[in-house]
Formats: sequence, structure tokens, C-alpha cells
Amino acid sequence: MATKAKIGVLGASGYTGSELVRMLLRHPRAEIAMLTADRRAGQAMRSVFPQFSPFDLPTLVSIEGQDWSTAGLDLVFCALPHATTQKVLKDLLAKAPDTKVVDLSADFRLSDTSAYARWYGHEHHAPELQKEAVYGLAEIHKREIKKAQLVANPGCYTTCAQLPLIPLLKNKAIETDGIVVDAKSGMTGAGRSAKEAMLFSEVSEGFHAYGVGGHRHMAELDQEFSAAAGKEVIVSFTPHLVPMNRGILSTIYVQGRRGKTPEELHEILLNFYDKADFVHVLPFGETPQTRHVRGSNWTFIGVAKDRVPGRAIVISALDNLVKGASGQAIQNMNLMLGYPETMGIDQVALFP
Amino acid sequence: MATKAKIGVLGASGYTGSELVRMLLRHPRAEIAMLTADRRAGQAMRSVFPQFSPFDLPTLVSIEGQDWSTAGLDLVFCALPHATTQKVLKDLLAKAPDTKVVDLSADFRLSDTSAYARWYGHEHHAPELQKEAVYGLAEIHKREIKKAQLVANPGCYTTCAQLPLIPLLKNKAIETDGIVVDAKSGMTGAGRSAKEAMLFSEVSEGFHAYGVGGHRHMAELDQEFSAAAGKEVIVSFTPHLVPMNRGILSTIYVQGRRGKTPEELHEILLNFYDKADFVHVLPFGETPQTRHVRGSNWTFIGVAKDRVPGRAIVISALDNLVKGASGQAIQNMNLMLGYPETMGIDQVALFP
Amino acid sequence: MATKAKIGVLGASGYTGSELVRMLLRHPRAEIAMLTADRRAGQAMRSVFPQFSPFDLPTLVSIEGQDWSTAGLDLVFCALPHATTQKVLKDLLAKAPDTKVVDLSADFRLSDTSAYARWYGHEHHAPELQKEAVYGLAEIHKREIKKAQLVANPGCYTTCAQLPLIPLLKNKAIETDGIVVDAKSGMTGAGRSAKEAMLFSEVSEGFHAYGVGGHRHMAELDQEFSAAAGKEVIVSFTPHLVPMNRGILSTIYVQGRRGKTPEELHEILLNFYDKADFVHVLPFGETPQTRHVRGSNWTFIGVAKDRVPGRAIVISALDNLVKGASGQAIQNMNLMLGYPETMGIDQVALFP
Amino acid sequence: MATKAKIGVLGASGYTGSELVRMLLRHPRAEIAMLTADRRAGQAMRSVFPQFSPFDLPTLVSIEGQDWSTAGLDLVFCALPHATTQKVLKDLLAKAPDTKVVDLSADFRLSDTSAYARWYGHEHHAPELQKEAVYGLAEIHKREIKKAQLVANPGCYTTCAQLPLIPLLKNKAIETDGIVVDAKSGMTGAGRSAKEAMLFSEVSEGFHAYGVGGHRHMAELDQEFSAAAGKEVIVSFTPHLVPMNRGILSTIYVQGRRGKTPEELHEILLNFYDKADFVHVLPFGETPQTRHVRGSNWTFIGVAKDRVPGRAIVISALDNLVKGASGQAIQNMNLMLGYPETMGIDQVALFP
Repeated sequence: MATKAKIGVLGASGYTGSELVRMLLRHPRAEIAMLTADRRAGQAMRSVFPQFSPFDLPTLVSIEGQDWSTAGLDLVFCALPHATTQKVLKDLLAKAPDTKVVDLSADFRLSDTSAYARWYGHEHHAPELQKEAVYGLAEIHKREIKKAQLVANPGCYTTCAQLPLIPLLKNKAIETDGIVVDAKSGMTGAGRSAKEAMLFSEVSEGFHAYGVGGHRHMAELDQEFSAAAGKEVIVSFTPHLVPMNRGILSTIYVQGRRGKTPEELHEILLNFYDKADFVHVLPFGETPQTRHVRGSNWTFIGVAKDRVPGRAIVISALDNLVKGASGQAIQNMNLMLGYPETMGIDQVALFP
Repeated sequence: MATKAKIGVLGASGYTGSELVRMLLRHPRAEIAMLTADRRAGQAMRSVFPQFSPFDLPTLVSIEGQDWSTAGLDLVFCALPHATTQKVLKDLLAKAPDTKVVDLSADFRLSDTSAYARWYGHEHHAPELQKEAVYGLAEIHKREIKKAQLVANPGCYTTCAQLPLIPLLKNKAIETDGIVVDAKSGMTGAGRSAKEAMLFSEVSEGFHAYGVGGHRHMAELDQEFSAAAGKEVIVSFTPHLVPMNRGILSTIYVQGRRGKTPEELHEILLNFYDKADFVHVLPFGETPQTRHVRGSNWTFIGVAKDRVPGRAIVISALDNLVKGASGQAIQNMNLMLGYPETMGIDQVALFP
Repeated sequence: MATKAKIGVLGASGYTGSELVRMLLRHPRAEIAMLTADRRAGQAMRSVFPQFSPFDLPTLVSIEGQDWSTAGLDLVFCALPHATTQKVLKDLLAKAPDTKVVDLSADFRLSDTSAYARWYGHEHHAPELQKEAVYGLAEIHKREIKKAQLVANPGCYTTCAQLPLIPLLKNKAIETDGIVVDAKSGMTGAGRSAKEAMLFSEVSEGFHAYGVGGHRHMAELDQEFSAAAGKEVIVSFTPHLVPMNRGILSTIYVQGRRGKTPEELHEILLNFYDKADFVHVLPFGETPQTRHVRGSNWTFIGVAKDRVPGRAIVISALDNLVKGASGQAIQNMNLMLGYPETMGIDQVALFP
Repeated sequence: MATKAKIGVLGASGYTGSELVRMLLRHPRAEIAMLTADRRAGQAMRSVFPQFSPFDLPTLVSIEGQDWSTAGLDLVFCALPHATTQKVLKDLLAKAPDTKVVDLSADFRLSDTSAYARWYGHEHHAPELQKEAVYGLAEIHKREIKKAQLVANPGCYTTCAQLPLIPLLKNKAIETDGIVVDAKSGMTGAGRSAKEAMLFSEVSEGFHAYGVGGHRHMAELDQEFSAAAGKEVIVSFTPHLVPMNRGILSTIYVQGRRGKTPEELHEILLNFYDKADFVHVLPFGETPQTRHVRGSNWTFIGVAKDRVPGRAIVISALDNLVKGASGQAIQNMNLMLGYPETMGIDQVALFP
């Protein structure tokens, strides 16, 4: 039997934390060695997430007081709030230079330290790590991820927008002006903090946009889209909240460049993801539904012809907690530790 | 006490039918004199819609066999399926030329008979009525509605898109190319017929687009937008289904024309709807939620600045069964019968 | 035109507050003269509940600093948290002895001061008011309510259980031992405070019981059931949370006494509520659904025969925010001010 | 690598069919060799369940025309409608006497042919098979299942009621009179057929009971409870529909026998399920939620003290499509084929 890597999950009391535990419990090469949750330190994981009641898991501990140099962790998933992350990881990597890290926050996604300062309103606390960190969209940056010590796991909205758009931008197949990404997310994307606006009674039986016209996630999109296109690309992006738990669907409006037809855009995506383990391009004209990827690490992509000549509508769907967060994080772990890419994250979608 | 108009509801076993009954039961100048539902003829309304169990209502009858000439109806709401409508109304108006009609189907919305034939694949069965019918978007065509005998009640998606866009097009304040209307609807918009795709287990906890790239509702949009702009306007329009019962939200991406700023677009809408009873323009930068108009005849509209220079995001929300169907139909009835426009349809939204 | 009573709503930022405002806005004899919300004082009601955006309403104020003696309020609805209520109302009624009060908290529902102390763990702060207060279940205590200055509006669970059971207990038609009330409530019953357990992602797509074996609401049931039966009655009662906004359904298991059949129990309820404006007894064997009373002040009751000989299953359904709270409160106001009992609360249910 | 059993799924276009496929796709010892769906014959599984789009699966075929004698199937899951099942399995087992069968319908659950005729209104079409069939509640009948050729997989409601009650009845720890099982199920329990009453708009945002006082599932309960107790046991049982996809929760009211306390009842369950792979008894006083077993084969059971002396409230929760249907069916397959009981069905619950 192969040895198991010792894994830590920092911030285990949120939804990305519980998703990591759900999948790691069935990962043949992972051992959950540490779970942290500052406000719930001392409690059993089952009291925070009763679904784990039948399982043996480490008691939740506080980050403060951990001696990273003796913890013997092979890899740490960091699911901590923005900014805290920078300080914790700086300390951890200094004390335990052999530990690898997959960070699920937005803190290390921008390679440009000045872009970070502009969007977040303050200097980065670990600028040298920010430069080293590899952006963890496995379908695009696989080679770098395999060699990385610190991987910045992409955001859920941005993963959903990048997977269909990056191949089109790389191929210079669409106009870079006028791209519209109309995105819709389930409620788990907003996390587990107790806010009035996230109560069931506020959210169910209704639909709305938020952060209209400007959203931090756009910094990540600008960086990756511009790199793919070889020129500055700024898209219109509006996030919405759907009364459901899981799933993101992006409806993307594009104009074919130099006469590229919707069918040709579809062909580009089909070829690009021909061998991808977790991206599935539907037959031309079919479009995906979030429910059909729920609980799985798949992204489904569809392309349809718009009735406005020359325009195509590209739609992508994924589970924000899996491919949009924890599944992608384990995919990155698999690459970093030399495991098969699909190990432990090959669950079939749960529908209905 | 003022006399009451005798009202018929043709097609009372669907959701627009039950909404008409809900509001007419509390309308001070309406008497529900006839309810039809072919497949449920002979049954009590309470067996089709148990919420009406405590109320005295006419037994459901079949349309066939009605003698319109002696029915003495002042006004009929027609909520029948496409195509059937044309035949029924042709017959009804021939036999009862004094009866007024508000038709909730799509059958009389296109004034151009050839456009009808093109979109629906067959000749119209009542072309002379098609020409006479008035398009019943009260905020735009109030004068004609007051004098009409036959009003074609607008569709739910199209009402939601027209109310924000028509004033902007009339004012030539936005570019007519590249308009994107990304629309999201609750499930009641799909009606009450028993289809696998509409089962709770198929629809809940998920989100998807449908009819991508082409949808019959667009004919209505093309007609009204082109009329407002004074030139042909064809928008990109994608409908989606939200796991909720009621509500439509349209996220509309526009480019200001000749330097018109988002703030100026907002100002145009604010002025246009200054005295409107059922359209409310939110302060600049605020955007609406479907839940805040649920059960009411209101449309809420918001305008925000896109981060892409020169572009604005306009969002509108309404209840598809009220302002998008039966509430608007009663609004038209009020205008046609000379009642105050808000009579019987001034319920405050039910939230949460 | 009849004069309007000046109405205050204390605690207008919760769901019972917004429901009061929703109905009072359309009540022909009520003027909303004061809205309080301590934490939101100084804000417009539209910023707390955007559905009121088109309406003219008083700005939210803090309770502290109100001079009740000059406020000139005819009636106050008090929707404040437990315990606070006692202090506020004691002060208010001392300063404004002509103001009538409908209290929506549990503070004045127990007439026995020692029962209060036992269930709530402390002495009542206004014991003399506690004794004077009339229990506001209009269908049972109408005569006393009409003359009352302070009415304690019943709880939502308890209204739903009392309306079917009290007539049966008064008629000594069922055994008083072994009664089981299995109750299910929508999420608005839990209020609007920001708690993790009430987040959409925690609550949707699942079902659970809570407070199993003991719940404060039982004190109210014990008091009223024992009074009706003329002997001590203690029922088994389990509340559950349903992933929906509104509605309570109680499934009640009873044994007919001295050979009383389920049909005879049905007959008793039918007769008891023969003239009731807001209680509707369904034909024998039919049982109600919460959706068919949503947004209305109705309670629907059904009786069916259990297959276990001699046993019946009685099911009742109401909207917890209307008949279970604010609608019943306005019903009480109507009785206290001499208005028709149904005034302003005769909305038909909103389904779907 | 171990050989894989060749598996057929009869009736693959319903929800129990898709759940079988979901789990079998990841079962290390199963090969999906045949999928039938009469009305969808000739179609790809992906057109019936798009979540399987990325997977290689047999094309759907019709049952008619299958030559069972040459199909070479090791085991068949039969998820066909009531009555059809009897004819198909009679034929199949005659032609392929070495094929094992797990039947998910109710057709073979009653061992008493006269009880079958009484509840279903006609004679059984395969009475000799009915007698041979083993009732497949693995936690109770494991030994017989291991040797069986035909296993009748228990119903979802009845599994949820039996797992907590059978140990208590076997131990004569509770009174057999007056047991109340108040059961609540998600919508997938009603299957995938297109019925008006199951539309999203009919079902969401509401709650109701159905089949009150009598339900076919009770025959199965009567049989198993009476066998466990050694005397006739007839419980009150009311099923309800919850607006969610998956999950059943049973709230069970019992009276301890001969002074047995709720704590002692809890102890009995704890001991009984001490080594069970899929039943988890919570600490005394804690009660389960359906969401915490979603997608998993677990049943969670809790016991609490009722305030009525001597009475206990026992609550059980499972996923109706997994432990209530397809997961339990694979558990039975594992036992019948000599595989480890948990193989392929050890997924951790998907929450949120």
C-alpha cells in the first residue's frame, strides 16, 4: 500500500474546508492530519459539520500556537479569510520550508504586486511569496503547478469564465472588446458567515445581481485574459445569486473575430479540451446546467449561435465548491505530489 | 355602490387564470361571471386551485357550447394556448361585438401579419383582428389601449426588457447594436403543463439557459424596439430558469450613445416614469431584486455604471404572473373600462 | 371618508414588522404614524425592506426618547424581542393610558405569573399587565378582545394547533392523553436575525426537527388546552423546519373519546367554524397545504380517518406571518377599534 | 485486478436508475453491461441524464426482445414500475437461472401472497418467486440476503421507519399500541413521471401531507414490525412532501414499556448498531437532519426525551435515493456477490 501524504486543512469550519474533508476522507493517498478553526478550536469536527459524525477526524485546533516546523505536514490547504492568509503562510513557509501549500483565498492570485495594492487598497504582506506563487488553473498552467511550492487556487467565478474564454483568446478567435460575462452563483459561494442578506428567508424565492459594475474578482480575470490574448482585455462582468446551494453558470456573449463562426469557436474548445479530465465540451448547440455537475469536479461548456450575425453565446457550468474551490485544490495537490490528476476527485455528479 | 362589470376568464385552470381570479375577487368593480377550463369542465375552481376553497365562484365550463351572444360579458380575459386563441376570439367577437377582450397569449402581439407567419410557421387565423389589436404595454400605449376592443397583453420577458429599454431607445441615448438582454425567470413562466423538465426534482437546486440564440418572444421585442428607435434593432437575448416560482430579472448591457453617461441614462428613466403607477426607478447604482416585487404589479428598474468606459448595466425586475401577465391584464381592463388604473391591483409585494 | 387610526409599529425591521406595514398600507382605516427599529434608527424603511421603496413611510426611529404621552397613537403593535417588550409596554401604557396595544411577543400570553416564571426562568417585569392582558385568539376570545386594552397575540405554532384542537377539547370529543402535534414551519418563523443555522446554505435542501421534547411555546398550549378541556392537558409537540419561507402545518394525531368517529370530529369543527371569517374546514378526508393559505389570513383544517381504529388525523395549515402573527394582530386591532373584522386582511392567498 | 460482475439496470431512465449508474460507475467490481428504458430505447444515457455525458455507457435498450439466456448478466437491478416487474422477472429468472436480482419495486416485499392480493387488489403474477424473495433490509436480514437469488429491496419510507423501530420492538422495549410515525420525504421519492402535482411551481414553497390514513407502504411495515415484535403491530403513519430533492426524516413517538426510559431506548439502538457500516446513532438528545446524509448510504438516528412522562421521540434520517433505494440495492448486491459490504457506496454526504 502506498504511503499517504499528511495533510492539513487551515480553516476547516467553512464550506471549502468541509468539501476538502469530504473528498480527502476518500482519497487513497491522503491522511487528514490537522484541522484548524480558530473560533471552534477544541471542538470535534462533527459539531461543526454533523455529516462527519461517523468518521474519525482530528479535533479542531487554533492556528495560533501551531509549531509548523514539527507538524510534519506534506501539504496544507489554506482556506482562511483574505489578508490573514498572507501572514499565516509567510510564517508557515518560513518554519516548514518543505511543506507545500494550496491557498484557496484570493491573496496570491495576482502576480503583479501593484495590481494587488490597487484592488485591495493596501500593500501585500508577503510580496516575495506573491511573486513565487503559481496560479492554479490546472488546465492552463499544469506544468508550473507540478513544480510549485505555493499554488494560488483560482476563484470560482473566474474558473468558470476562464475555462471557456482562454482557449478562444489564445487563438485570437474572438473580439476582445465587448465581451459580456453574465454570471450566476449558488449561495455557498458567499461562504458560511452569518449575515442577514444570506438568510434563507432573504434569499429563497428570488434572484438578484450584486456588486454590479465592479467586483474584486475582476482583477484575476483581467490578469489571465490579458495574458492569454497578449493584450489588455477588460470584460463586462455581473455576478448574480441564485436560490440554490451549489453551482455557477456563466453566460458569455462574444463576437467571432475575422469571420470566425460559432461552430469554429466550438471546434477550438473541443480540440483544446480533447484530453482534459475535468472539462467536457457539449455537442454544438447544447448548453449545460449546473445541476449536472453538482458535487463533481467537472466543468461543462456549450456553444450556441446567436441570432445576431457573427455572435456566439458560450455557456459554462461548474460546482463552485468543487471545481470552483476544493476539488480544484485537490487536483492541484495531486499534480504537486505526483499523484494521478483525478485521484480522489472522480465522483460522478449528484443529480437530482 | 358602483355597478360591476361582468368578467369572463377563458382558461382559468392555468397560473395566469388563477392570478386573474385572485385579483378580480378583490376588485371593487368586477364580477367573475364565467370561468372556462375545457379539461376540467364541470369541476369546482377549488378542485383545481384549493386556495379558492372558501370563495363562491362559478363552476368551470367548457368553451365549446358557450353562447357568447347571450353571455352578457363586458370583458373577457383570454388565457388560452397559442393558436386556439385566434379561433375562439374570432368567434367570440363576431357573436358578441360589445365584449372587450384582453388576450394574454402571444397571438395578437405582432401587428405585421407576415412577421407572424415567419415566426410561427403558419398564416394567422384572424388577420383582421391581428391588425386591430392594440399592444397592451400600458406605460407606452395608454391612449390606444383606452379605446381598444382587443388588447394583446405583452409577454412577461418582453415587458421586463421593454420598460427599461424603450425610453432609452426613444431618446436615442444608447447604441442600437450590441445590446445584450440576459433574462432570468421563475418557473411559473413555463406554465402548468405536466412536463418532465418542469418537475421539482429536475428544476430545484440548479440553473440553466434555454432556447439559446433564438426564442419566439424576440419577434415582439424586435417589433417594439424597432418602433421605439425608428430603425431596426435586434438584441441578443438569452432566457434562463431560476429555481423559484415568481419573478423575472433582466440584466441589460448597453453602450451610451454620443457620450451619454450611465447617470444620464438613469435620468432619462427617472423622468420617463415620474408619474407611472407601476414603474419605480431606484436611486442610481442600486439594482432591484425579484423578491421585492413578488405578488405586486410593480416593475423596479436600476442603473449602474459598468467598469468598461461608456457602458451601463440596466437591471429590471417584475413578477411574471402580475406585471408580466395578469396584473398588467387587469391594468389594461381598468383603462379599457374607464376605471382608475390601479384599481384592484395595488397589493404591496409579499416579501419574504 | 372615515377617520384613520394612528398606528405605531414597534420593531419594524423584522418580518412581523414588515408584514404589518404591508397590510396596514392598504388598510382603509389605518395610518402608519410611527415605525421604530433601534439598530436602524434614522434610516428609511426602504433601506431595510426595499419592497417599500415606492411608498411614503415614516423614517425609522429609536424607541428610546419617544414621548408616548404626546405621540397621539391610537394603537401600537409591539414586535419587540422577549423581555424588552415588558419594559417598553409598561412605560408606554403608563404614559399613554389611552393607547391600545397588540403585543406580538410571548411576554403577555401566560396569565399565570408563576407559570411565566417557571418557563422563562425569571419574574415577569410587568405582572399587573400580565394579568390584564387578553389572549388574542379571536376565534375563541372575541368578546374579551373587543374590550381589551392590551392583547397578547398568540404564537404561530400555537395558533395552528389551537384552532383545530380547542373545539374538540371543549366538546370532550377526544382523549386528552396521547395527543401528538407534529408541527412543521417555514423559515420566517425563526425571524430575521443573522445566525449561521438560518443561512440559506444551511437550511435549503434539508429537513430537521429542533427543540425536541421541550419548547417554550408549550406553556401557551398547556394553558389554553387545559382551559378548553377543563382539566390538565399536556401534548407531545415537535417543531420542524421546512425549507420554505412561509407556512405552518400541524399533523395532529387524536383518539376519539367514547366512540366519537373521525367523521363526528369533522362535524364538530365544521359547526364551530361555520361563521368564522378566517377558518375554513375542508370536506372530510381532504387535508390542507400551506401554499394555499400563503399571504392570507386563512387557516385551513382537514380531518381524515386513521387506519388504526378509533383514531383520526387532523391537519391544519396557516401562514405563520399572517394568521400566525401580523394578520391576526390586525384582526385583533379591528376588533379593538370596532372595525369590521376582515378589514385590510382579506387578501386572497398567493399561489403559486 | 479482480474481475468485474456484469450488471444490468432495468429501468435506467428514472431516478433510482440514475443513482445506480452514478454509484456503479465508481464501483471497482461492477461493469455496467446493460441499461434498459423502454420509452427511451435507442437513445444515449446522456440524453436522459446529461450528467453522464462524459462517460461511456451502453445505449438504452428496450426490455422486450432481450435474450436473457445469452445476456450473461451476473446481477440485475430491477427498477421497473409495479406489476410489470413481476412479469419481467418471472421471464428473466426462467431464462437465466444463474442471474441474481435486486428488485427495487414493491412487488416482492410481501411474503404473504394473500396480504399482497389484499393491498394491491389482484393476485400476484409470480407467487412462487414472491415466496422465495428475501426482504433486503441488510441490517436485519443479512444472512438470508447473502444466500438469496432474488432480493426485494425495501421501500424508502419503510427503511427509515424500520431501522429505529425494529431493535426496539425486538427488545420489547416499547408499547406496540399508539406508535406514531410522522414521515417527511423529498420530492425524488415520487419518481420522475410528469404529473401536475409534482411540478416545481406546485411543490416549492409549501408543505403538505398525502395519502393520509392509508398508504400501501404500510403493508410492508405491518409485516416487518409484527415479525419483530412477535405480535401484530399497526402504526399510525402519515407521509408528507418537503420542497427538497432528497431525504426522508421520520419523527416517531413511542411509549417505553415497563418503565423503559428514553435513555434505555437509546442504549438499545446504540448496541444494536454498534458494528453497522451504515447506521449511526447520535449521542442521546441529538437529532438528525436529512442534509447530513445526502448522497450517502448512511442512516442517522437520534433519541430524545419527550416532556410527557415515559414517552420518547425517535428521529431517523436517510437519503431516499441511496439508503432508501439504490445505495441499499448495491449494499445487497455486495452481500449477494460476496464483496465487502461498503464497496462503491462509501461516499461521504454532500453538504451543503
